[in-house]
Amino acid sequence: MFEMPEKVTIREVGPRDGLQNEEENIATEDKIDWINLLSQSGLDYIEFSSFVHPKWIPQLKDAREVAEGITRTPGITYAALVPNRKGLENAIDTDVDEVSVFMSASETHNKKNINKTIEETYRVLEEVVTEAKAAGKTVRGYVSTVFGCPYEGKVAPSRVFEVSNRLFQMGIDELSLGDTIGVANPKQVDEFLKQMEENVPFSKVAMHFHNTSGMALANVLVSLERGITKFDAALGGLGGCPYADGASGNLATDDLVHMLEEMGIETGVNQEKLAEAATFIQSRISKELPSHQMQIRNRQGGRNDG
Amino acid sequence: MFEMPEKVTIREVGPRDGLQNEEENIATEDKIDWINLLSQSGLDYIEFSSFVHPKWIPQLKDAREVAEGITRTPGITYAALVPNRKGLENAIDTDVDEVSVFMSASETHNKKNINKTIEETYRVLEEVVTEAKAAGKTVRGYVSTVFGCPYEGKVAPSRVFEVSNRLFQMGIDELSLGDTIGVANPKQVDEFLKQMEENVPFSKVAMHFHNTSGMALANVLVSLERGITKFDAALGGLGGCPYADGASGNLATDDLVHMLEEMGIETGVNQEKLAEAATFIQSRISKELPSHQMQIRNRQGGRNDG
Repeated sequence: MFEMPEKVTIREVGPRDGLQNEEENIATEDKIDWINLLSQSGLDYIEFSSFVHPKWIPQLKDAREVAEGITRTPGITYAALVPNRKGLENAIDTDVDEVSVFMSASETHNKKNINKTIEETYRVLEEVVTEAKAAGKTVRGYVSTVFGCPYEGKVAPSRVFEVSNRLFQMGIDELSLGDTIGVANPKQVDEFLKQMEENVPFSKVAMHFHNTSGMALANVLVSLERGITKFDAALGGLGGCPYADGASGNLATDDLVHMLEEMGIETGVNQEKLAEAATFIQSRISKELPSHQMQIRNRQGGRNDG
Repeated sequence: MFEMPEKVTIREVGPRDGLQNEEENIATEDKIDWINLLSQSGLDYIEFSSFVHPKWIPQLKDAREVAEGITRTPGITYAALVPNRKGLENAIDTDVDEVSVFMSASETHNKKNINKTIEETYRVLEEVVTEAKAAGKTVRGYVSTVFGCPYEGKVAPSRVFEVSNRLFQMGIDELSLGDTIGVANPKQVDEFLKQMEENVPFSKVAMHFHNTSGMALANVLVSLERGITKFDAALGGLGGCPYADGASGNLATDDLVHMLEEMGIETGVNQEKLAEAATFIQSRISKELPSHQMQIRNRQGGRNDG
């Protein structure tokens, strides 16, 4: 087989990317309890919320209360999404460790998602990244619709590299490349990453897959083969994409950890603790979590625990 | 990327391996209509039932009626499972194209599944294979619990090769290696297949994955990398394993075809026709089919079609 990394780092995005796409509104106290459970699982990165205007994402309107309510475990990076300077100021106020900025690789999705052209977005993010760095924060850049756009179809890799490099020029510390609508196939991911090696600072890239067509773990596998060691995931497979019809949940953290650990790749995550956290948040939303690990547990009768 | 095959062959096992593990009893007429739909999808292999005693698998007690009721499309191989000479005789009576015999690589699972030791099973299958070949039938051999047994845990590859080669010595034309309880991980599959190349007639091997932990497509991917071009799958992800607690459905034909076609690998299967067949059988069982392709369709409002 291809060379496998010994260790993989997971960016838990469930409290942000997961919950922002769930219809159910979770009580602030429950979010705090959940994030505290996540902090005990061995994960060392938790994106806990988004400082966007509540008009856009009402599910995350309590970002400040969550930031101030959680118990911060030393060694864990607590990150939050910020769309603009106002969001950044609020995030800095609550002393987050890292902020994330975001934009799309496709013009139409960018316009529909953040109501700006890509060029206009560059100007906003340039300010945000500069100010965040000046405040001593590390910055993560998300690029969405990397493998396909719900409005434009396939997206040219060159377009993704261009957007990515603009973000790196601004000073981002890590780049997350998102298959927002879950259309990437392993061959496409492989060919994309092969090209990316020559175009983008590879070691600073995390892949962000959605499991819409069940290919997320296969896409992880080819990414591992290409040397990627950082992956975004949302516990239980929470979430989806509000701007893309039919897009289902994020790659599930528990399924990712399970596969990696079964393959002998270290994640640092305790699967039992992770399951406790998943069972807790499942009990607070109005549906079963879609991850395979949770489906197995639910069938074994643990559905109402937590 | 690794070299990809241009074409992959799919063995549709839904009417047998799928339905035998569903609680719902499907009317014979519905099975016939479903198999006729499958025959129109471009699949060229359909395992339509099992000639086992109804005491063991009541869901498939109408094997003869199904065999006699379906419209046989030229170019499609219609196969049926047979556990012993009695089953074989019934199968031959209905003029099947191919028969399948089965056993486990693990002693305990074999004992619990077919109530015989592995040695005793060899003697039964030897007769069945010889007689089937004499009757001009091709024969497929299933080996289950290849990557793990619900009773014994991990199974030594050498044990699998031994059982496999005994079946090849009997005269089987194709071998299907089953991850019966869905525990295989891509690293394990890769290492197994690497060893297998030197031990078993590789070109006659099909892989049979279950998607219990969501790794089936990732396991397909490493199998493709190792040169495997034949895969078993059940439409919609029907089925599971009655002898293994918590084991969920087969690798879904529709998800497999979707991934392969997205990767530019030819399957010969028409995805729209496949979806029609899936929608039909979904309407006849009391639950939504678990495949991602059907989940997407169901969310888009097609749940009650067919």
